[in-house]
Amino acid sequence: MAGPLSRAALAERMGVNRSTILALTAELAGAGLVREELPAGTTGAGRPSLMVRPSPGFFVLAFDVAVDRLSAARVGLGGPILDRRSAPRSRAGVDLDTVVARLAAMGRDLLDAAPPGTVCAGLGASYCGMVRPGDGTVRYGPQMGWVDQAFGTELAKALGIGLPVAVGNEAHLGALAEHERGAGVGVDDLIYLHGDVGVGGGILVGGKLLGGESGYGCEVGHMLVNPVDGRPCLCGSRGCLEAETGEYALLAAAGRPPGEAGRDAVRAVLTDPSAGAAVAEIGDWLGIGVANLINLFNPGAVIFGGMLRDVYAVAAPQVAARIAQHAVPVSRERASLRLSALADDATLLGAADLGFATLLADPLAA
Amino acid sequence: MAGPLSRAALAERMGVNRSTILALTAELAGAGLVREELPAGTTGAGRPSLMVRPSPGFFVLAFDVAVDRLSAARVGLGGPILDRRSAPRSRAGVDLDTVVARLAAMGRDLLDAAPPGTVCAGLGASYCGMVRPGDGTVRYGPQMGWVDQAFGTELAKALGIGLPVAVGNEAHLGALAEHERGAGVGVDDLIYLHGDVGVGGGILVGGKLLGGESGYGCEVGHMLVNPVDGRPCLCGSRGCLEAETGEYALLAAAGRPPGEAGRDAVRAVLTDPSAGAAVAEIGDWLGIGVANLINLFNPGAVIFGGMLRDVYAVAAPQVAARIAQHAVPVSRERASLRLSALADDATLLGAADLGFATLLADPLAA
Repeated sequence: MAGPLSRAALAERMGVNRSTILALTAELAGAGLVREELPAGTTGAGRPSLMVRPSPGFFVLAFDVAVDRLSAARVGLGGPILDRRSAPRSRAGVDLDTVVARLAAMGRDLLDAAPPGTVCAGLGASYCGMVRPGDGTVRYGPQMGWVDQAFGTELAKALGIGLPVAVGNEAHLGALAEHERGAGVGVDDLIYLHGDVGVGGGILVGGKLLGGESGYGCEVGHMLVNPVDGRPCLCGSRGCLEAETGEYALLAAAGRPPGEAGRDAVRAVLTDPSAGAAVAEIGDWLGIGVANLINLFNPGAVIFGGMLRDVYAVAAPQVAARIAQHAVPVSRERASLRLSALADDATLLGAADLGFATLLADPLAA
Repeated sequence: MAGPLSRAALAERMGVNRSTILALTAELAGAGLVREELPAGTTGAGRPSLMVRPSPGFFVLAFDVAVDRLSAARVGLGGPILDRRSAPRSRAGVDLDTVVARLAAMGRDLLDAAPPGTVCAGLGASYCGMVRPGDGTVRYGPQMGWVDQAFGTELAKALGIGLPVAVGNEAHLGALAEHERGAGVGVDDLIYLHGDVGVGGGILVGGKLLGGESGYGCEVGHMLVNPVDGRPCLCGSRGCLEAETGEYALLAAAGRPPGEAGRDAVRAVLTDPSAGAAVAEIGDWLGIGVANLINLFNPGAVIFGGMLRDVYAVAAPQVAARIAQHAVPVSRERASLRLSALADDATLLGAADLGFATLLADPLAA
């Protein structure tokens, strides 16, 4: 939800009829989650559609586990980030318990700082790996070495406020957030590419996230783009899109020493004139990946987010050249290439929406 | 439609409620397209759901333009092929007028041979290239050198029976036909790969064909799999999946002289023990393509059709090895690999369904 909307507009956006909206908003208003009010400028004549406005008293806590940073935020209905905590995370050897304990501490801190009378109505989390729908188990997070870790359950337990934590993959959530209020508004067939340290994707087909048979679709990071002399990937393969365009690849191509890492190191390479060849090489592989995705999905937009936002801003010429070379003209004629509008908040806002979604699915259960 | 079904089963399969089915079947029965009858073994007690049975008097004409063969068939509701015509087609220099004239002659021949009292209720066609939804224009058919050719309109004009021709891409139609009555029944997230001379794909996401922004999704044949020393592709690029796994690649890898072509030549290579290395090489590239698609789509099934049905039957070990190497375990755990059940009729049956779909969408307009 992007702010106050008329009942009629809400019905249209949710694809339901007006009597359903009437019942739903009455239920939400009864629970104190929204207020219904006359639109500004109403004269009293006729029957204006009531405006539905999120109540300011409710918020969600959103969490974001990226490869080298942990974040948490208090987010209001409609997406405003009201307060946040963030801290770097050591990349290696960080187990579930440590991550959960640190996030829970951030969450409690945010709750303590929330204004009196406001209520936490939901919990959502973004994770840099493959997440089982439903129970928030991380099935596979190669960047952190996680396999089948009960992340959602454990984080809910550690927070201990009686609410479950809805967990999603970071790029899936970024795609949904960009579609809801960022660079993808109105584009129902879109590809969002997210660079963290690895590379992930969130793909909307006809306005819905591509889940596949069991919810693990969109795994663009392990699409093989360089089968001949590819760089090793943490998944055990070589030449994956992530291995050729992620942070490690960029820093290695630019000849940076193995110890260097992180977004600042990436930005230093991207702005270093002597690293032009390295950036062009990364842009070439990124362009091949994007061309393949355009052929497969005939998208209306391709959005570059996270660290790939910075890469694309510099390597756009290489990406465009590869698309011209490898994407079928009919497939690419409607595809516009865009920078993420939500930038580094995309995944956190997606996690917040996930928290609100569990609430909105059953407003009176919370 | 796969044959007689109860109203209740029909309602469930079409995702509509029983009152909609009641109105729809009444309309179809009024137009003579279906008969409603009591199920076998009904005793008269209770209220059995009436069976809806396609009328035997209606058929569609289905057309199939493959790279080296033209086909047409008279097909009954529910998919039985009642009569067919087929002829080889010269690969080079065949223009729209020639193809349309030959198909129209086959169609008239089938109409002349139809039993008295039966009625042609729709026209559908499958084409080996990219087709604009709605008007049946071939936007891009590199194997035949077609760009923006008004195929559907011209075929309808040449047939001259007052019905439009609904046109679809061959692999899209094959995917839908396999899902409806072949190897993909019940699998709503599936990938169908079709080898003609080139390679095409039809991908279902949540039970619906992946159309993308303008209906040109699923263009798997031009996914780049070999960026380093790829074979030239008719699209102007090199190293596309089609260029590495299509008929030309297989025959060239096996050292066959340039003049050899066609399904018989392909089968000769596939059964020639001395061509094992060539088959393995093609299987390797096919496996890389399939691994990428599994990562992206988390499918329940991958179905090999057309010429790739024959290739996969022999090269399954290479495909399996590449999937094990390059597809993320979580993404591939539900993906079963299958041979097309409809074999060389998949595209023709898909075209027939398309013809019936235009009829069923507006039964009284025909």
